Amino acid sequence: MSTAPVKRRTDPERAQQRRNQVLEAAALCFARSGFHGASMAEISKQAGMSAGHIYNYFDSKDAIILAFVEREAEHVAGLLRDLDSRDDPLEAMLEDAPMHVAESLDPQPWHMPLEMYSEASRNPVIAAKLKEVDERAHSQLRELVRRGREQRQLPVDDTLLDGRLNTLVTFFHGLPVRGIHRPDMNREALVEGFRCAMRALLLS
Amino acid sequence: MSTAPVKRRTDPERAQQRRNQVLEAAALCFARSGFHGASMAEISKQAGMSAGHIYNYFDSKDAIILAFVEREAEHVAGLLRDLDSRDDPLEAMLEDAPMHVAESLDPQPWHMPLEMYSEASRNPVIAAKLKEVDERAHSQLRELVRRGREQRQLPVDDTLLDGRLNTLVTFFHGLPVRGIHRPDMNREALVEGFRCAMRALLLS
Repeated sequence: MSTAPVKRRTDPERAQQRRNQVLEAAALCFARSGFHGASMAEISKQAGMSAGHIYNYFDSKDAIILAFVEREAEHVAGLLRDLDSRDDPLEAMLEDAPMHVAESLDPQPWHMPLEMYSEASRNPVIAAKLKEVDERAHSQLRELVRRGREQRQLPVDDTLLDGRLNTLVTFFHGLPVRGIHRPDMNREALVEGFRCAMRALLLS
Repeated sequence: MSTAPVKRRTDPERAQQRRNQVLEAAALCFARSGFHGASMAEISKQAGMSAGHIYNYFDSKDAIILAFVEREAEHVAGLLRDLDSRDDPLEAMLEDAPMHVAESLDPQPWHMPLEMYSEASRNPVIAAKLKEVDERAHSQLRELVRRGREQRQLPVDDTLLDGRLNTLVTFFHGLPVRGIHRPDMNREALVEGFRCAMRALLLS
């Protein structure tokens, strides 16, 4: 990651804790003032750290975005590893759908704030990072879906899987946007609708 | 819409043209500088109009966002009217999927720039407007899907339709985000994946 090197010898666990403290403060400031509106000074004030101290961990707001991307990617990789540890990964995906849908609908500490995607459309370093972590997650997802479909003797050709999985992932991308439009929607009904689509994408 | 009243007597067609000119300029400025980064001065310069002149049409950047929301809503209402005019609206949705997917993946003049959704999470006026236009589109969509399902004697109960249609709309919300992650993806395969999910949501 293109963050500033830690300039002093520090306890790695403590450094990680400090980095998280900055990320949490940054998420609050971005939500309140927007990515462009939030200054490093505002973030350092929110984090209760001096600006100089913050620069030990992140040398710019861009570095903070890259850390958000990485953190969300780690969370998703953990979910996929968990699914992959189950005997029937496709059935596990359907079972866990309510949790996955709820996690994507509601702001989570590991979420990349929505407007950072706009930043990616302006900033090739962020776009490259998004693509890199997406490729990683996509191949992890493809392998577990391939295994689940092979168990069922369903077709596993690359183009079919590629289109089906991009559709599935697109749905997750859309959830926070849907939540902004309709915070009042019937979430149980949404999960049922989503399961209906998932069954078609994974099990047909 | 909460835009400034047109202060002088003007030709309505010319006024509309001027409003569109401002919206196009604003979309360019938001894409370049971010919503918070773009000033009314930058937008007026991009539009080739004086700042004073712009304020005849929009009294703030918020008023510009509301106009984007309204314009996107009008476009979607037109698409839904077109689908509703066809004999078999569900088959028509499947047929038109490649066009609808492409429109949502690629930036369009009538698109609400992605980062404005973040603005909605901070601004109750924008959130209320998003909800209002979404309710309108949702009932238009529900009526056409209900008709298509009744033709096929499929269940049309409100909760089922609500969940299925929220799932469908969530997919469209996710497309621009997916496009930012993977501008290189196989779009034909994506359309096939999407059609697979649509068939389940609409025709089962």
